[in-house]
Amino acid sequence: MDKSKPTKALRTLLESYASLNYPPTSIEYLNTPPTPLEFHQIVSRNRPVIIRNAMTDWPAYTTNKWTPEYLSSKMGEMEVMVAETPRGNADSIVTHEGTEYFVKPHTTPHSFNSFLSLLKSSTTTPNPSTILYAQSQDSNLTSEYLPLSEDIPATIPWASIALSQQLPDATNIWIGNHHSVSSLHKDPYQNLYGVLLGTKVFYLVSPIGVAGVKERRVRSATYVKKGEGFDIVPDPVSSSNNVGEEEEEEEEGMITWPSISLDDYFSLPESERSTPVEDISDTDPWKWTKLSTPIKVEVKGGEMLYLPALWYHQVAQRVDEDEGVCVAVNYWYDMDFSGPFVSMVNYVRDMTEVVMNS
Amino acid sequence: MDKSKPTKALRTLLESYASLNYPPTSIEYLNTPPTPLEFHQIVSRNRPVIIRNAMTDWPAYTTNKWTPEYLSSKMGEMEVMVAETPRGNADSIVTHEGTEYFVKPHTTPHSFNSFLSLLKSSTTTPNPSTILYAQSQDSNLTSEYLPLSEDIPATIPWASIALSQQLPDATNIWIGNHHSVSSLHKDPYQNLYGVLLGTKVFYLVSPIGVAGVKERRVRSATYVKKGEGFDIVPDPVSSSNNVGEEEEEEEEGMITWPSISLDDYFSLPESERSTPVEDISDTDPWKWTKLSTPIKVEVKGGEMLYLPALWYHQVAQRVDEDEGVCVAVNYWYDMDFSGPFVSMVNYVRDMTEVVMNS
Repeated sequence: MDKSKPTKALRTLLESYASLNYPPTSIEYLNTPPTPLEFHQIVSRNRPVIIRNAMTDWPAYTTNKWTPEYLSSKMGEMEVMVAETPRGNADSIVTHEGTEYFVKPHTTPHSFNSFLSLLKSSTTTPNPSTILYAQSQDSNLTSEYLPLSEDIPATIPWASIALSQQLPDATNIWIGNHHSVSSLHKDPYQNLYGVLLGTKVFYLVSPIGVAGVKERRVRSATYVKKGEGFDIVPDPVSSSNNVGEEEEEEEEGMITWPSISLDDYFSLPESERSTPVEDISDTDPWKWTKLSTPIKVEVKGGEMLYLPALWYHQVAQRVDEDEGVCVAVNYWYDMDFSGPFVSMVNYVRDMTEVVMNS
Repeated sequence: MDKSKPTKALRTLLESYASLNYPPTSIEYLNTPPTPLEFHQIVSRNRPVIIRNAMTDWPAYTTNKWTPEYLSSKMGEMEVMVAETPRGNADSIVTHEGTEYFVKPHTTPHSFNSFLSLLKSSTTTPNPSTILYAQSQDSNLTSEYLPLSEDIPATIPWASIALSQQLPDATNIWIGNHHSVSSLHKDPYQNLYGVLLGTKVFYLVSPIGVAGVKERRVRSATYVKKGEGFDIVPDPVSSSNNVGEEEEEEEEGMITWPSISLDDYFSLPESERSTPVEDISDTDPWKWTKLSTPIKVEVKGGEMLYLPALWYHQVAQRVDEDEGVCVAVNYWYDMDFSGPFVSMVNYVRDMTEVVMNS
């Protein structure tokens, strides 16, 4: 078989997607929450949308506004699990002694008050040795953070109706600052992500843009605290089973994960990133990433991002000076595995691997 | 590149689709019309559904029941265009003097009454030399058949709401008998197909099953009446622009069209057709068709088929003895070209061609 044909077909796929979803790097804003039917139309299109005024009736946003002081008053000395890393890089690929690993964070229980005050003080520290991030992703809002759950609805009504799911699979709270990032990854969930304090910066790539994220198969490991620093300890066997992480471990202790940082991509000059897809050179080192038309979008306090299932996302955050922390909640709803979508996305992944490795 | 990898990936795609839409050869029935949201969920899944009791309030089905006598009383001597073919095979691949052609029907204007009485008398003739079929597909219900259009709604309300389209792109009436078939093809429309008299037999293959329909690129031609028989005359240039036919003529006068008849496939013993996809042999001549899990379904008078956009369909029909004709109407609504679906389906087609021709 002539290798050039599958390569050309893959490029045609990405060019076609860009032209049928034009402009491919922009995101739609809704100024009011969608009806269930409107939301289903959006979900069906598998395109991200930012929804404004979707949280205006949440106590967390109105009467019981989630300031750091309020959170402390509700949570007090309750114990919460906190991810600790040297560079804010939980769940990401790190080179250690010449080998690449997928490294999970060290996790430690903290009293909420102690966590919050450590977090706030690190916000004003240029290079803290330990970076804290509450990001359990195990529906922590309905367990560790139960006292806060009464300030947000148990489900988003228009999402529940559209997706025929009474309650989400998980509701998570995220508390961190600008030192933490989530590396590029994807989840098999329909995600509604509401920002309450600070700003989240999402870098997004559609599921068919898998060629652009350069997935790599690496051994998994975990950060372990060692004195003031961290060591990286390879996992003897696979042990991670976080809700929502589509890790596809074909072999114990191995994981397939995107290897690029979209922060690097968005550091390229705007003029270079805005090259029309059909003009991207085959010799451009960023060729496949450019063809996958990444989106960079800020989700500000009060805004909610609909992040469609299987979209790659990398997340950074910014704090407001007077708050010192960034707080968000997200709802994970099941995605529909029936129909052709999941099979076709997996096919694009399989063929991308064939094209990239031949 | 190792050819076996793309071939294996294509097979995995079809096996995955079959397992995620299990049982893949069955069709869901609804006993009442869906709500707009329910219909959108079905559309989003791109799976066919038969809807019962969707036409119970249509005059064509109740007060002004569309018996042949009623149709005559409304249409009288009005002129309608009728497809004429030697074997009931309008729009299909035919071998002529050693060459395969895509042959369009001869079309002739008839007075409605004359057409209907010729059609009814041919129903009881074993091998008529000319087979008639009113199948204009140019929204004939709102033009040639305008007097009948008042007996059916201008749109299906739940479809209009779900698809955000006030009126369908086209509304067609189909009048024929068991001598006529529509060869396997697909349309870029969401199709609601209601049967009023007789029974339609649909053979269906999903858009990703393109490997199973064995598309072939052939020269287009047209049947031309010649004495009592027909001649096949190659088209000098492309001239067909029927609404809804996705013909993709890359070169003038050439057309890509499925080459198989699913009637042949469904003549295989049931035991052979029900082999689980993972057990289908690579040397089986029907391998790719079996992997594409075709569906055969009868749509009876009073039932409505939702035929999702881009599904391959071949249609046969059966008349009830006392009526002598088969009458159906269909609504074509625009499909949503945004999102990843259309790009991915085209990609599967491109890669299927690479796999099949290498």
